[in-house]
Amino acid sequence: MRVLILGGDGYLGWATAMALSAHGFRVGVVDNYLRRTICHEIDAEPLIEVPNLHQRVEIWRAASGHEVEVFVGDVADYAFLQRTMRAFQPEGVVHYAEQPSAPYSMMDHPRGLLTLQNNLTATFNVVSALREAGPGCHLVKLGTMGEYGTPNIDIEEGYLEITHNGRSDTFLFPKRPGSIYHLTKVQDSDLLYFAAHTWGLAITDLNQGPVYGIETAELAADQRLAPIFNYDAVMGTVLNRFVVQAVAGAPLTVYGKGGQTRGFLNIRDTVQCIELALRQPAKSGEFRVFNQFTEQFTVNQLAEQVARVGNALGLGVRVESIPNPRKELEEHYHNAKHTGLIELGLQPHLLTDEVIAGMIEYVQRHRQGIRESYIYPRVKWA
Amino acid sequence: MRVLILGGDGYLGWATAMALSAHGFRVGVVDNYLRRTICHEIDAEPLIEVPNLHQRVEIWRAASGHEVEVFVGDVADYAFLQRTMRAFQPEGVVHYAEQPSAPYSMMDHPRGLLTLQNNLTATFNVVSALREAGPGCHLVKLGTMGEYGTPNIDIEEGYLEITHNGRSDTFLFPKRPGSIYHLTKVQDSDLLYFAAHTWGLAITDLNQGPVYGIETAELAADQRLAPIFNYDAVMGTVLNRFVVQAVAGAPLTVYGKGGQTRGFLNIRDTVQCIELALRQPAKSGEFRVFNQFTEQFTVNQLAEQVARVGNALGLGVRVESIPNPRKELEEHYHNAKHTGLIELGLQPHLLTDEVIAGMIEYVQRHRQGIRESYIYPRVKWA
Repeated sequence: MRVLILGGDGYLGWATAMALSAHGFRVGVVDNYLRRTICHEIDAEPLIEVPNLHQRVEIWRAASGHEVEVFVGDVADYAFLQRTMRAFQPEGVVHYAEQPSAPYSMMDHPRGLLTLQNNLTATFNVVSALREAGPGCHLVKLGTMGEYGTPNIDIEEGYLEITHNGRSDTFLFPKRPGSIYHLTKVQDSDLLYFAAHTWGLAITDLNQGPVYGIETAELAADQRLAPIFNYDAVMGTVLNRFVVQAVAGAPLTVYGKGGQTRGFLNIRDTVQCIELALRQPAKSGEFRVFNQFTEQFTVNQLAEQVARVGNALGLGVRVESIPNPRKELEEHYHNAKHTGLIELGLQPHLLTDEVIAGMIEYVQRHRQGIRESYIYPRVKWA
Repeated sequence: MRVLILGGDGYLGWATAMALSAHGFRVGVVDNYLRRTICHEIDAEPLIEVPNLHQRVEIWRAASGHEVEVFVGDVADYAFLQRTMRAFQPEGVVHYAEQPSAPYSMMDHPRGLLTLQNNLTATFNVVSALREAGPGCHLVKLGTMGEYGTPNIDIEEGYLEITHNGRSDTFLFPKRPGSIYHLTKVQDSDLLYFAAHTWGLAITDLNQGPVYGIETAELAADQRLAPIFNYDAVMGTVLNRFVVQAVAGAPLTVYGKGGQTRGFLNIRDTVQCIELALRQPAKSGEFRVFNQFTEQFTVNQLAEQVARVGNALGLGVRVESIPNPRKELEEHYHNAKHTGLIELGLQPHLLTDEVIAGMIEYVQRHRQGIRESYIYPRVKWA
């Protein structure tokens, strides 16, 4: 199967590209380096320097023998996307090509607007290009569990049957996003639902929880194939940040009470979920939604586990509650379903102490890259 | 009260500007003439030629003695909007500044993208400018009843309490928009809800049904003050189109079975609703939603009433069902609440035979402006 990965340079995009190409897919990667540009712009460089996409592809080819095609350009530029689609003729498109940070989207007006325009234009262009390409290409879109917010009811996978005054109908699950970034993902979902129903597109939306981890199977071939690994408070996800804080001897910074519950997953499972969705595609006219995570934890639970494992390794880890820069509930009901991907065959890699110890050891080997100034939040919601 | 009307040149914007200035408000109008540009672009000129905004303001001043300030520019240009807000210092902002046509948004990729980018950028800029301006300015935003689509349950005003697995929460009413234009209004609503809750803005969202009519009280002062009145299948609303078709001797074109039910209102009531919402504003942090229409009809009922009144005036009106260019249900459940604006004091102008006769007579006086080529649909949904 020919698969085009939009945002193929990112934290998850590159890991996905390697895994799919190792598993027999013909892979093309598309990126405009927006994430790298943002990292330079706000001084939030990743832990480890990462070669550019052409270099990564060359290193991967030398290590594995697999070819990956590179298209450098902006999915928000429709003429570029059309050219790329015509050249590559994908049967599957994986759409990661969005500004991925909630705090970045809340920094100021220009960055909020960039997030809104970039993410919505990219998604509109993608569905338009798929419509032009005709039937037979399946879109796998990365959404986020943060679209749901923290409702006081069980979170289903995408849809909810509602009975009201004795009548019933099934709707997209009502959403309550907590940042401009999360809002754009909700707006994307509404657009994708419309595109599937109006134009007969086949779309899978993966509402993913925060991802952690660095090493996927393919990284063993050459350490230069590591993902872009951010650990700062703007571009990094929480568990990755905690691990770096533990190694740096900085306190693990818990926002507020730390009772925020989220569904998490290992980067290995992100890659696995994408492949499962591609191999068992949505039907034409179907907007299929899965909740993509494997375990639910509070932020306090994560901090405690990292502290326990870190202390067993002699790190002397402290946990510190700091004022919450976000506007969010710190104690709330949380029960989200996540059976759809299990039914497709997902075999979860759970967050064992060994996994955390492995991450700590990896970060220790690269500890010279840690900048402590990155660790504290610098964006407030209001 | 100082009120800035964004989109003050449009079908409803200008009528609102005159009425508010006649009723003691200090009014500023902002427009980039997008609607006029589109009318030229797709050859869909209004029935009557309309002076530009500077000329309208001058005619209105001469006729009424009331001053209206003009700001020509694009709300999607944030620097322009900031300058305008600082210069005018509004206590209320009425936001009509969006691409208003569903068929236009469905014509092709560039026009769909224009609709998406224009409408969302405008709304994001407006909430950002209000946030910068600080507390004390109330936003009245025009949404559409089309955001809801045609659910199989009663449509409430904006919110729905949902009980699921024994737990309850209140959400924005789930939406199912039927065009890219309607989708942008849903995306706007999600953004406005977020802005009210995160930044403490005071926002009223008016989910308006299709508007009909030409004459408001202020038009009596000078006929050159008429609204931009489109009757074609792209820019016109259904009842206005039927009236022009009746006068032109063309069949009233009903799309498909004609069982589509919508909530309609007279342009006089649009103006009244805006004023009521401004005089009784939402609170800081509140996203208040009203369904803005006065009566619910099927398209067949509208066609029959126009035919009956037209025939009584000797017009020989025919009704013709044509293939539906849209993707929509032609027979569906429809029961939408609309008590909020009545509680604020709305006194509806209902769709009597006299109202239709008045519209017919108005259009007859301007029949030389009718172009029959405008009357048939030219945009298909899929």
